[in-house]
Amino acid sequence: MKGIGILGVTGRMGHAIGNAAAEAGIPVTGGIDRKGGVHGDHADAAALAAASSVLIDFSAPAALERHLRIAVDAERPIVVGTTGLKPEHHAAIDEAARHVAVLQSANTSLGVNLLRGLVEQAAARLGPDWDIEVLEMHHRDKVDAPSGTALLLAQSAAKGRGSMLKELARFDRMGDHPEGREEGTIGFASLRGGSVAGDHMVIFATEGERIELGHRAESRVIFARGAVQAALWLRDKPVGRYTMQDVLGL
Amino acid sequence: MKGIGILGVTGRMGHAIGNAAAEAGIPVTGGIDRKGGVHGDHADAAALAAASSVLIDFSAPAALERHLRIAVDAERPIVVGTTGLKPEHHAAIDEAARHVAVLQSANTSLGVNLLRGLVEQAAARLGPDWDIEVLEMHHRDKVDAPSGTALLLAQSAAKGRGSMLKELARFDRMGDHPEGREEGTIGFASLRGGSVAGDHMVIFATEGERIELGHRAESRVIFARGAVQAALWLRDKPVGRYTMQDVLGL
Amino acid sequence: MKGIGILGVTGRMGHAIGNAAAEAGIPVTGGIDRKGGVHGDHADAAALAAASSVLIDFSAPAALERHLRIAVDAERPIVVGTTGLKPEHHAAIDEAARHVAVLQSANTSLGVNLLRGLVEQAAARLGPDWDIEVLEMHHRDKVDAPSGTALLLAQSAAKGRGSMLKELARFDRMGDHPEGREEGTIGFASLRGGSVAGDHMVIFATEGERIELGHRAESRVIFARGAVQAALWLRDKPVGRYTMQDVLGL
Amino acid sequence: MKGIGILGVTGRMGHAIGNAAAEAGIPVTGGIDRKGGVHGDHADAAALAAASSVLIDFSAPAALERHLRIAVDAERPIVVGTTGLKPEHHAAIDEAARHVAVLQSANTSLGVNLLRGLVEQAAARLGPDWDIEVLEMHHRDKVDAPSGTALLLAQSAAKGRGSMLKELARFDRMGDHPEGREEGTIGFASLRGGSVAGDHMVIFATEGERIELGHRAESRVIFARGAVQAALWLRDKPVGRYTMQDVLGL
Repeated sequence: MKGIGILGVTGRMGHAIGNAAAEAGIPVTGGIDRKGGVHGDHADAAALAAASSVLIDFSAPAALERHLRIAVDAERPIVVGTTGLKPEHHAAIDEAARHVAVLQSANTSLGVNLLRGLVEQAAARLGPDWDIEVLEMHHRDKVDAPSGTALLLAQSAAKGRGSMLKELARFDRMGDHPEGREEGTIGFASLRGGSVAGDHMVIFATEGERIELGHRAESRVIFARGAVQAALWLRDKPVGRYTMQDVLGL
Repeated sequence: MKGIGILGVTGRMGHAIGNAAAEAGIPVTGGIDRKGGVHGDHADAAALAAASSVLIDFSAPAALERHLRIAVDAERPIVVGTTGLKPEHHAAIDEAARHVAVLQSANTSLGVNLLRGLVEQAAARLGPDWDIEVLEMHHRDKVDAPSGTALLLAQSAAKGRGSMLKELARFDRMGDHPEGREEGTIGFASLRGGSVAGDHMVIFATEGERIELGHRAESRVIFARGAVQAALWLRDKPVGRYTMQDVLGL
Repeated sequence: MKGIGILGVTGRMGHAIGNAAAEAGIPVTGGIDRKGGVHGDHADAAALAAASSVLIDFSAPAALERHLRIAVDAERPIVVGTTGLKPEHHAAIDEAARHVAVLQSANTSLGVNLLRGLVEQAAARLGPDWDIEVLEMHHRDKVDAPSGTALLLAQSAAKGRGSMLKELARFDRMGDHPEGREEGTIGFASLRGGSVAGDHMVIFATEGERIELGHRAESRVIFARGAVQAALWLRDKPVGRYTMQDVLGL
Repeated sequence: MKGIGILGVTGRMGHAIGNAAAEAGIPVTGGIDRKGGVHGDHADAAALAAASSVLIDFSAPAALERHLRIAVDAERPIVVGTTGLKPEHHAAIDEAARHVAVLQSANTSLGVNLLRGLVEQAAARLGPDWDIEVLEMHHRDKVDAPSGTALLLAQSAAKGRGSMLKELARFDRMGDHPEGREEGTIGFASLRGGSVAGDHMVIFATEGERIELGHRAESRVIFARGAVQAALWLRDKPVGRYTMQDVLGL
């Protein structure tokens, strides 16, 4: 059994993944930091990848293409947990998934992935007179808003409604809206502060009542554990693109 | 089309049902107050029932048997929304349901009934290392705790776990528990104050994360509307016992 | 004792104020609707104002100047509860307050006004390493975001910090913020849906902990009651501009 | 500069205090575990205490008297963070405080101690028609309910009302209360599950509105940091009993 190579090894999630791997008894082969420096006893990135049976990337969107190339060149499966991805990053992931197994998820916790299923069902059952809003709070250093997980939850809601998120999502709440809220849309609200690991809530509101479906992460540990679990699952999977739903059997 | 007879007509829910019936364009034939007085132009309770096509009871457990007898004697379907029922009341409902159609629910809102399904699924998917707690808040005049709706939600959770609520429910949280929380149980917490129409939350908590599935009622109007909707649905149903799940097709 | 004239008499708040006045035993002299139509037995707006001892305005920013002129011309005190006011509206209020007593508040509930004091103190005690965020949710028909009450609460927080809201407020959370959250700023998040009367929360978040100070309004009734209470208080006050803090003695 | 001796050194809080002391650059001299075993290079408990400039106790009520005696015998100030204390433990603390400086608090975080002040003021301003409820959630291993911090917050509320908690507290919410909620009382509700470090909320509810004053702890780290801060502050204080309010200057 080879171990896990960590792309983004010096970041907060990199450290958490190292700990989660140790907790699970999986060796860490080394990693690459955000300046491209190779950690562990390896000549270069290619050697690190060759010495690993699977890679986990929690870095930054700007580094993603380089990291995917390392995985493809070394023919190693890769778990991508980096958030704030744009369409071009997803295109790069699709391309990489033609050559190796790639699992990408903006949230690797069991709880959030279960919640996605509940949100989809609620949205499917409740008519358009139930307004859908997605609220999230994260620590003060998070750079993107709304969070990748908020977008995932909203995707599930849109799917439940038989639609696509890009058609329903509204990010321009602040300011004047003389017509009020547009029926059928999905609104977003983001809070930033302190060291919050990640709170999310999907609200369904109609005349006289509200349903609130939420998740609270106490620390990054749950994401690191889920990523390590995903990496172990991914090691022997065929080429293709996967999600946490596949790992968790949801 | 005859109309609705309201058992408990002078209570807060009695008034709300009168309004909801008016809103829906359904006549109210009259009602019976908590002292047994008959309202509307009827000689007695039997005459009121005969003049109604369906009855709705939001009164008190102590009055329930009398009200069920009125329905059975007049062969009229009856919706029972009274809360705080004990096993003997449920036995009386079962008996009445051998003669007329009876729909009993501690909560007649669409939102809560949908939530029950989500809670059942979450409980079925999450292992016993996810502790389940049910929290509710109601107005200061509510006499029973936990609320009937809290018990309904907990029943759904117990069902999801393949068990019965009476085996899992724990109502004795206050005080010392030297062994900590017992795995697999379902705990309850109740808040009372102000004029809160009814807030409920089912919490699933494990190491590092929580899922919170909640419902907020802004006013009694939603329960009254749901009860009127249930009454209309029940009018032509055969003898038997029904639930809001049947009405809502959930 | 003359009564209350309601400016915006056919709106939802107009109806609620009529009910609150009846509840308090205060006569309503009539009102003006959003098309300028005069309700009650009066020849015109001037006659309505002359027949009233105080006016309450819950209309729209566009109607405010006209309503202030009616109050000034008739020399009648006026309570302004209309929200979504811009600097030019506040200037018009300041001008009117040189001639009559004017009480303006974006929120006339006791709870919110008490909360403002608590928020100011918390902000004064907690250092700049506690990030401040203001969250609110309102019904789907609300046209402005953030709510006037959210701005009031944020003003109190800014005052506690010895600063002005306009220097600290940030409304552009959505999108990318490569530097993370700017220290010392106050962020806003708004949710819209259903019939929510008004929920607000001020969050203070630092490394490892959060303080959450919130208010939930169950219905517009509390704002209407507060506005009537303010109107009674304002009737014999000298020319000048007042706030709910003055009425409540906070 | 001598260091800190940790009474309850092998518990979760013991470890957290060790880390917090290291973070703050303060030496740890050793500790005593729950079986009375002495850790660090000391002949016995007396030697450990003599080698320490201050002691911190996060153990169990049953061990408290023994730990206080160690402090008194060695003439060392002691911070007591153990929760679940009964009147006899407080009497023992009072007695010890006649000989050494003792700071006792069920919650050593800045946030909770600030919140106490806000709760006291809110209770002082709001009349008895505002019902007060205290809600808390903690991890599944917590043995006492309600939490010591919930009791502290309720004490502040009772003080704001000019009364004593023992007169207002009601712990028997579950079951039937035919008269409804008793005016002026303070109710409690406790949730247990997962690894929640400690969430608290004081709710003030009246007709139509609610004020919610809450605190969320993300991890035990904040309590450990506060305890170390308290220990440093206590080292040169005269004999007597102190609280976190003294340390934080609130």
